[in-house]
Amino acid sequence: MYFLPRLVLNMKNEFAHNTYDRLCAHAREVAILYSVQSLLGWDERTKLPPAGGEYRAEQMSYLAGLIHQKQTAPEIGEWLNELAESDLAADPHNDTGADIVNIKRDYDRKAKLPQALVEELAKLSVLGQQLWVEARKANDFGRFRPLLERTIDLKRQEAAAIGYDGQPYDALLDEFEPGAKTTEVAQALTGLRGQLVPLVAAIAASSRRPNRQALQGHYPIEKQEEFGRRCASAIGFNFQQGRLDTTNHPFCAGMGPCDVRLTTRYDEQSLAGSLFSTLHEAGHGIYDQGLREERYGLPTGEAVSLGIHESQSRMWENLVGRSRAFWEFFYPIAQQTFPETLGGVAPDDFYFAINDVRPSLIRTESDEVTYNLHILIRFELELALINDELKVVDLPEAWHAKYREYLGIQSPTDSDGVLQDVHWSSGAFGYFPTYSLGNLYAAQFFEKAQQEFGDLPAMFARGEFLPLREWLRTNIHSQGRRYPAAELGQLVTGSPLSHDALMRHLRGKFTPLYDLH
Amino acid sequence: MYFLPRLVLNMKNEFAHNTYDRLCAHAREVAILYSVQSLLGWDERTKLPPAGGEYRAEQMSYLAGLIHQKQTAPEIGEWLNELAESDLAADPHNDTGADIVNIKRDYDRKAKLPQALVEELAKLSVLGQQLWVEARKANDFGRFRPLLERTIDLKRQEAAAIGYDGQPYDALLDEFEPGAKTTEVAQALTGLRGQLVPLVAAIAASSRRPNRQALQGHYPIEKQEEFGRRCASAIGFNFQQGRLDTTNHPFCAGMGPCDVRLTTRYDEQSLAGSLFSTLHEAGHGIYDQGLREERYGLPTGEAVSLGIHESQSRMWENLVGRSRAFWEFFYPIAQQTFPETLGGVAPDDFYFAINDVRPSLIRTESDEVTYNLHILIRFELELALINDELKVVDLPEAWHAKYREYLGIQSPTDSDGVLQDVHWSSGAFGYFPTYSLGNLYAAQFFEKAQQEFGDLPAMFARGEFLPLREWLRTNIHSQGRRYPAAELGQLVTGSPLSHDALMRHLRGKFTPLYDLH
Repeated sequence: MYFLPRLVLNMKNEFAHNTYDRLCAHAREVAILYSVQSLLGWDERTKLPPAGGEYRAEQMSYLAGLIHQKQTAPEIGEWLNELAESDLAADPHNDTGADIVNIKRDYDRKAKLPQALVEELAKLSVLGQQLWVEARKANDFGRFRPLLERTIDLKRQEAAAIGYDGQPYDALLDEFEPGAKTTEVAQALTGLRGQLVPLVAAIAASSRRPNRQALQGHYPIEKQEEFGRRCASAIGFNFQQGRLDTTNHPFCAGMGPCDVRLTTRYDEQSLAGSLFSTLHEAGHGIYDQGLREERYGLPTGEAVSLGIHESQSRMWENLVGRSRAFWEFFYPIAQQTFPETLGGVAPDDFYFAINDVRPSLIRTESDEVTYNLHILIRFELELALINDELKVVDLPEAWHAKYREYLGIQSPTDSDGVLQDVHWSSGAFGYFPTYSLGNLYAAQFFEKAQQEFGDLPAMFARGEFLPLREWLRTNIHSQGRRYPAAELGQLVTGSPLSHDALMRHLRGKFTPLYDLH
Repeated sequence: MYFLPRLVLNMKNEFAHNTYDRLCAHAREVAILYSVQSLLGWDERTKLPPAGGEYRAEQMSYLAGLIHQKQTAPEIGEWLNELAESDLAADPHNDTGADIVNIKRDYDRKAKLPQALVEELAKLSVLGQQLWVEARKANDFGRFRPLLERTIDLKRQEAAAIGYDGQPYDALLDEFEPGAKTTEVAQALTGLRGQLVPLVAAIAASSRRPNRQALQGHYPIEKQEEFGRRCASAIGFNFQQGRLDTTNHPFCAGMGPCDVRLTTRYDEQSLAGSLFSTLHEAGHGIYDQGLREERYGLPTGEAVSLGIHESQSRMWENLVGRSRAFWEFFYPIAQQTFPETLGGVAPDDFYFAINDVRPSLIRTESDEVTYNLHILIRFELELALINDELKVVDLPEAWHAKYREYLGIQSPTDSDGVLQDVHWSSGAFGYFPTYSLGNLYAAQFFEKAQQEFGDLPAMFARGEFLPLREWLRTNIHSQGRRYPAAELGQLVTGSPLSHDALMRHLRGKFTPLYDLH
């Protein structure tokens, strides 16, 4: 008789294992469709013939529908119910438990979205990006406005369908930064602003000023590409498993366990624009390449949040790429690559010039210090749009007003104003604040790595970047979604999210540069 | 009471219309999946990072399974049964009738294939192409052999599953040239050979010989690309709805109603290789761009057969692109584009050199006259492989033996021997003979167009290529699959398929060039 309980238990476990396998097989099937969608999106932005946009929208919409259908299949709910009581789900931080808990989270969220809404949003996202390119080229916000109005309307419908405790924006933010709340994000960004404003003021009052003119000159695009690839390889982006292409708006997209694609944009008059975009996107790509291949398609093989994703791109771009140590190694190579332009520029002048702090119009080209003010503007505006406290028709002027207020400047055009970023055109509301969360996390992770390695700058100066990549791979990338973002940050650094590390880094770097006291 | 029959009839028609619409919606859904698969294939050959191949095979296999599943859905059979009695199916040559008859043909064929076989073939096709690239680079047939053996095994299984009246190869040929029979194709090609051999012999005996050395020199790749694009545009390929990229083996692939992509390969020492490949693939692309956009995804918006498809590519490549009239217009432009190499070459010498007839090793670079002998070799070998009259292990030597017998030459390597073409690596058995059918159809169509236009060469010499494209669009492209290939040929030209027109063209062109009598 005493066999029975064990037998039953074994059978139950056996059954749970099968159910878990079914759940995983289903998730991997969805991942294939996602990876295909990702390729269609990459192709659309990099290679698609001009007339191909309309049918591409059909393809994207169809795939989005197929994915949504699969992701909301009722059997997933049944499997999850069965697994809830299983040993496999007991520890939410081991592989099986984390897979189950995250699949459940995503399932509950997706199951609430009507398929028609998902399909219309996908279609609008493709058309929106095409229209945005046209409108931006023509500096004509009016051409883009009706589509943006419809998008916001649909995003409100999305928030209502998903539900929220606090405010509609919570439901949208949660897509990109699971678990984050609007009020907390607002508080963090406002707090950061309180620290940044005095620093920006002190820098503005400094008599020291880099000579940006020194960097002006001709940087042949093929040479920039060669140099960018070299830097991206050095920090650990694997080109056997990835590509680098050219687009209007730089991005990184993964489309398979060994296929991660970066894009950048080139300006023949400037090296910094393309290079720091390449390092930034390579940082994203290194995260994707560090996910566990054998768990591709499962939550434990996925990035944990956009904030953490952004922490990786900002770390490689700013904390590494704009550091003095990075250029101790790379500046001689840069001078060899661009002898006519950089041959006569002293390393210190180059370093100061790429760390010039001054209010500017273009977010992706702004400096480390003012960057978060760009984010704050977008966050406040999109929050107001979703809350219907701001009409789309008033958006261009609201944009200009915020830039005057926070940065003391105003774009002469809407192209470099409200039409600057691709995000809203693709319906990505709730995405912007993750950039600033990324900056906060990046500084905390980097400070911790620095404590553990002892002297990271000395390693960088010798061209040794891979140990840091391995540290990130072990502590962050390979963790997948085993811990929610905030918990992972706490685990790795021993501290909760805060702007202290970022402010320490900024003060430590810019106090000597600008001779501040 | 007399209302009733009409009422019933109306209701029946009403119902049939709904069923027809459902059938079409389903076909368009399958077309979306095909178009996505096509993009994945294009990307794999042009852009995929080296390590991405394995997962790409997973994606392709999954999509192939999804497509097969949809294409063999039992409701299609039910819809087709319902529609069989409807007025919509009464005329197999109007839009609705042709859609129904062709969907039924494809459905009956696909429904016979087990899904596991379809998926394995799709996966093997991707791996096969990767392995083929490696094996070709290493001149190592042994590396490719096991996969080829497995592919042939699966193709025999495919033939058995589909069934055939005559021989297994019929079932494979039918995929690419619906309705064609192995014995008929064998007869046509052997017949053509009977006419070609004396012509090749007469040319060999001629004392006239072009100076190919005259064309040797440096053709910068970006200039070749510019010139190739200019020629492709001139003959009517629309780059707003297409692209041109670089691959190992040139191809054309449609991936949407306004997205048709060509590839070519460049050799800095030769213009002819890239240019005639570009014209060839542009000919395919012009066919795809001439299909009716509003019927995309339905048989009436699809190409009728590979033979007819090839007739378009061969027409633009050879009958137009290698004609004296084409170069009366383009040679001055070519001289301007490549002044160092072509500046001192007389037009007649250039024209003779690009029409040099002599046995050679590479099919895609062979001349108009010997080309069909290359096809004959491949056709005979693949027929023997499928019939198990030839073992894969003996294939390299069999290849060499045929080349010695028909062309009097032998490749020193397998790379330019049995590993020359991509087709077998992707499981495309039954494809090769359509190249020669294309040559026969091309000559017949061109002769007919010449009769209708009066003086096509005079138009070409003025740079007027679009009237011919419009004629082809009206008579062939826009017809879709309303008529089977042989019937369409008869309708357009008034004659059945024959080698007379091709031989008239070849004799008319090469008799004066080689001073034959």
